Amino acid sequence: MQKLEFFRLQTREEVLAHYDRFAPVGVEDVDLAAAGGRVLAAPIVAPEDVPGFWRATMDGYAVRAQDTFGAGVGSPQYLEIKGEVPMGIAPTRGVAAGETLRVATGAMLPPGADAVVMVEYTAEHPDGTLEVRRAVAPGENVLKPGEDVARGELLFPAGRRLRPQEIGLLAAIGIRSLVVYKKPRVAIISSGDEIVPLDEKPRPGQVRDSNAYLAAAQVAEWGGLPLMLGIIPDDFDALRKTLAAAWGAADLILISGGSSVGVRDLTLTAIKDLPGSEILVHGVALRPGKPTILAALGEVGPKPLLGLPGHPASAAVVMEVLGRPLLLRLAGASGQSPWGRTVTAVLSRNLAGATGREDFVRVRLRREETTRWADPVLGPSGLLSPLVKSDGLVMIPLGVEGFFKGETVAVRLFGGS
Amino acid sequence: MQKLEFFRLQTREEVLAHYDRFAPVGVEDVDLAAAGGRVLAAPIVAPEDVPGFWRATMDGYAVRAQDTFGAGVGSPQYLEIKGEVPMGIAPTRGVAAGETLRVATGAMLPPGADAVVMVEYTAEHPDGTLEVRRAVAPGENVLKPGEDVARGELLFPAGRRLRPQEIGLLAAIGIRSLVVYKKPRVAIISSGDEIVPLDEKPRPGQVRDSNAYLAAAQVAEWGGLPLMLGIIPDDFDALRKTLAAAWGAADLILISGGSSVGVRDLTLTAIKDLPGSEILVHGVALRPGKPTILAALGEVGPKPLLGLPGHPASAAVVMEVLGRPLLLRLAGASGQSPWGRTVTAVLSRNLAGATGREDFVRVRLRREETTRWADPVLGPSGLLSPLVKSDGLVMIPLGVEGFFKGETVAVRLFGGS
Repeated sequence: MQKLEFFRLQTREEVLAHYDRFAPVGVEDVDLAAAGGRVLAAPIVAPEDVPGFWRATMDGYAVRAQDTFGAGVGSPQYLEIKGEVPMGIAPTRGVAAGETLRVATGAMLPPGADAVVMVEYTAEHPDGTLEVRRAVAPGENVLKPGEDVARGELLFPAGRRLRPQEIGLLAAIGIRSLVVYKKPRVAIISSGDEIVPLDEKPRPGQVRDSNAYLAAAQVAEWGGLPLMLGIIPDDFDALRKTLAAAWGAADLILISGGSSVGVRDLTLTAIKDLPGSEILVHGVALRPGKPTILAALGEVGPKPLLGLPGHPASAAVVMEVLGRPLLLRLAGASGQSPWGRTVTAVLSRNLAGATGREDFVRVRLRREETTRWADPVLGPSGLLSPLVKSDGLVMIPLGVEGFFKGETVAVRLFGGS
Repeated sequence: MQKLEFFRLQTREEVLAHYDRFAPVGVEDVDLAAAGGRVLAAPIVAPEDVPGFWRATMDGYAVRAQDTFGAGVGSPQYLEIKGEVPMGIAPTRGVAAGETLRVATGAMLPPGADAVVMVEYTAEHPDGTLEVRRAVAPGENVLKPGEDVARGELLFPAGRRLRPQEIGLLAAIGIRSLVVYKKPRVAIISSGDEIVPLDEKPRPGQVRDSNAYLAAAQVAEWGGLPLMLGIIPDDFDALRKTLAAAWGAADLILISGGSSVGVRDLTLTAIKDLPGSEILVHGVALRPGKPTILAALGEVGPKPLLGLPGHPASAAVVMEVLGRPLLLRLAGASGQSPWGRTVTAVLSRNLAGATGREDFVRVRLRREETTRWADPVLGPSGLLSPLVKSDGLVMIPLGVEGFFKGETVAVRLFGGS
């Protein structure tokens, strides 16, 4: 049995800095209806004003605001009703001094009008006179042309992930299709003589291929396209062949590998044997997650390979902490924090950190009246069940000995929690 | 122009209470690889133990723990190395007193062994003797059968949304396909004579169909299947016909309607004309969002219809506050909070609430050193751009006059923020 080859453990920041050498994947056109959650590959400049005309925001009467000045319940003003503005078309007449037209919410204001009196503050008299019981200021209850979006305005930079409200705004300016980054294709390789496929009953000494499924679900949740390349035995030729195939088919390669030293050494040897490959990281200052590998495959436009630890909890944490930022970078999501969403919570017990390593502790959130508690969920990293009981991770930074019970800590939430 | 028909405004809690009458949609089988984010329709009971055998969690030597008692750097113990346990198969021999076998992480422990000594605390001598420099306790560096998952254990109840870690655990117990709730089909109807499709250039008085796109993106993000049924003019027969078609094709109907009183009345009349329909809510005590309609369509297994306000910001808020919980209910996601994720932040200015209505104020989050600030984003609800600038909503409850600058408030985050 070999000893682990010497290699300095790198910090999370050092690992993230290596990502600069990997470029976002290509771009593609998508219909706006399918663009939710995608990442813009080109900035969007507004081609027109929204709204394109003076628009009523209330049901009521289009007026010249100055005609209502002084109006009150005890001192109404009277205007002459000259008809109604139909919805969806330009009014055929304007409003002169002392005149008004009925308007519904969303209708275009007639020329001359600069405000809308809400129907609640009026009464129509049988002779066609409108009684106005409240004054309006110019611009009241109307939207000006370009008030929502001004023509020529930079709406969104490249790298912006499109939420529902961005989709709505893009619809308003008539963008029917747009250029987004492709979803990164992520090859997932399992290695280990003890791993069997899901449809096989493990014999004594065997376990099912659960890490690949966990990683694939993370990749899909974060906007990637998982490609499951199956289980490779601990054999140099088989591993090298599969790595070469993955390099051709995918933008990112994950090896959800065996965690024994022998298997890791085999993986390193197979990577080094690929032309233009470079091992960037071999061992990270994380707990759990130390036996992590980062490599660049190919000399021109290198593709990243992330070798995950074999223990499921370690692999899941490494994917959250290092895999997600890598995937977001390849997806062009420059504007998005690699840390996702964090909430604060109060620790329910003391937590000691790991010397010389950034420590990620699983926690379950629990609400008690107005306090959000973080209960550490302990257990060996070979287990999946503590991860299932958890809502997120608390990081104990390098150089911090730990946190005390009662301290407020930041909890980085798992997706869907 | 008609006055709004009298109907008492209902609170958010009152609206949510109506949802009890709507049942989750049907179920379907999905492959585990496609089950991420789906909602279990039946509980999962573990069919077997995980792991199924005593398993090493470190590279090292399988021992009887008692043989190492007393071992230390100055007082090593010596064991006889009897070979190695190959990965993935059951060992062919056991460990008797004074014996040991090499094991790699993940290997099965031989009979008689109850712990693993890490390779770091040992030395192999040329004569086949192992020097052990640290004692181990029984169970150290091993997983017991059933330690992760015990056969017969209820792993997940129905209603659980499957995150990546749940997918990993289901893979570990060999679940290849499972029964989940179908994704609710959500018909989206736009109404209004002023609304034009995306590919038309609006003439004066016209606007594009942006609300339908915004709602569809929300539906997709929350796990529904949007069905865009297009734009219906303000015409009773056309509206009634489209509603009947939507009732047949979808599990939930959204009318992203005109916001004028006349259009709302037309919608109500068309709903009432459908057999077995019932208006449950006509007006909600929310700001924005007052002109919201909830109806039940069909006598047996009624389907919900949500009539959204015409102003885009109002429609988006009503979808967050009322539409999302309704969709989650139809999706069977009973375990999920309708409130999604909330973070706390410090208000950067005073906020006055709305009398008699629960007030939802858009805010943008801003980090300044260790403080997370919530900056209110104001603007008429006819605009989309304030929504685009926001990260979430602050709720001012009924009966609360407002919040002061400097107060810590809960911010309900928009998806993807």
